[in-house]
Amino acid sequence: DSTAPRGDRLGTLAQVVKRYRLYLLDMDGVLFRGNTAIPGAADAVRRIRQAGALVRFLTNNSTKTREHNARILREFGMEASPNEIMTTAVAAARFLSGRTAWALGEPGLHEELLAGNVKLVRDEPAEWVVVGLQRDLSYGQIDEAQWRIRTGAKFLATNRDATYPVEGRVMPGAGAIVAAVATAAGKEPDLVIGKPEPRMIQCLLEETGVRPEEALLVGDRLDTDIECARRAGCDSLLVLTGVTPEPPGDVPSLPSIADLSV
Amino acid sequence: DSTAPRGDRLGTLAQVVKRYRLYLLDMDGVLFRGNTAIPGAADAVRRIRQAGALVRFLTNNSTKTREHNARILREFGMEASPNEIMTTAVAAARFLSGRTAWALGEPGLHEELLAGNVKLVRDEPAEWVVVGLQRDLSYGQIDEAQWRIRTGAKFLATNRDATYPVEGRVMPGAGAIVAAVATAAGKEPDLVIGKPEPRMIQCLLEETGVRPEEALLVGDRLDTDIECARRAGCDSLLVLTGVTPEPPGDVPSLPSIADLSV
Repeated sequence: DSTAPRGDRLGTLAQVVKRYRLYLLDMDGVLFRGNTAIPGAADAVRRIRQAGALVRFLTNNSTKTREHNARILREFGMEASPNEIMTTAVAAARFLSGRTAWALGEPGLHEELLAGNVKLVRDEPAEWVVVGLQRDLSYGQIDEAQWRIRTGAKFLATNRDATYPVEGRVMPGAGAIVAAVATAAGKEPDLVIGKPEPRMIQCLLEETGVRPEEALLVGDRLDTDIECARRAGCDSLLVLTGVTPEPPGDVPSLPSIADLSV
Repeated sequence: DSTAPRGDRLGTLAQVVKRYRLYLLDMDGVLFRGNTAIPGAADAVRRIRQAGALVRFLTNNSTKTREHNARILREFGMEASPNEIMTTAVAAARFLSGRTAWALGEPGLHEELLAGNVKLVRDEPAEWVVVGLQRDLSYGQIDEAQWRIRTGAKFLATNRDATYPVEGRVMPGAGAIVAAVATAAGKEPDLVIGKPEPRMIQCLLEETGVRPEEALLVGDRLDTDIECARRAGCDSLLVLTGVTPEPPGDVPSLPSIADLSV
């Protein structure tokens, strides 16, 4: 447990006024929701930059490239370069760089793995099987994944999100596909990249040279975002513009990232 | 726990020489293995019939109709009528008869549900979602299943077998698809039909009017067949022609169904 003050009004205030060198911003639920920008979010990102701090954007989504994510943020009026985006595909690529892998996932995952120097195979043996969300999934792919794992490949899951939100409902997330493969393979993943696992934050701390206590994660989910920060040893700030309507007493929170002072 | 003698040589002998009114025969691993009949199995089935006992054939497989299964048995030289076959599709149909259901599964499942007077829907609301093995599965079907369950439908799984054997390897079973749907729906099945659940045996006891202690299940798997008999209150006999190479000390067993005396 952190020794930083937490949970009371004073703790919340102390945390929000503390200066951080690195701001780790969850995207959906913090900067936008569905197709709508969170009012004031673009200004908040600008203030962080003007204060001289670093900004990185995090998402568990493995299906889109960094370029694609940066374009989405720019459409919401937020300046963002592809190098400031961290996805589960990018973090998976950092981990697997130089190794052979067979991947079940969408083109964005394959592109980032290739960009990160992962040796993707089609029919050859591979050291790793990577499983992410793929919406044109086939039974044959679940079979190939489980059989490669049963015959010795290691099993990497981009994330275990059971669902993801779309227009007032939810769709099956990577976690559903990971569950199918894990069941058939008789084995849980050897490595899970996505939040609440700390791997994406660790990649960003390493890349920026920032120590965990100098970084603040801003997120909208307790079980993924805030838990991810805890596991990485960073401070966190819950905002109420996403899936969490009420703050629990013991987590620093603000109504919106628009209320963040830097 | 049963009070019948079990586990020692005497128990095994007592069980094998006891006369039963109903013989419940698992198919794959007991009567045939892959494309090969177990030597002497057809004779054993004949001896059971000649002794005046009833025979029923059980399988967790939901993808084939009773007619199809009877044809397979006849090709292996075993007389079998479709009415003697009990599959997870047939037992699901008995349970759901008269109710509305939306099914994820192969044509054999749909045929048996319709034959059992289940009101199958395509786009309309339904009381139940049925999930079985479907080898041309799509993401859209996993999504439709989970969303129907999230919005109130009950969840029936034909079985939770993680895999099924084919020519020297295994393929993902219904359990892998059930795991994907359960993960996305955030809910485990309300009802599982297949072994080790006792539902198929209960259907057969009801249909034949035989009491549990008058029935013997012959199977090759401890965790499904033998456990299923235990839950239904029937005696069981493990044969070593399938997936279990060595009998544990506490379960009555024979090398093969060919060694069964009736």
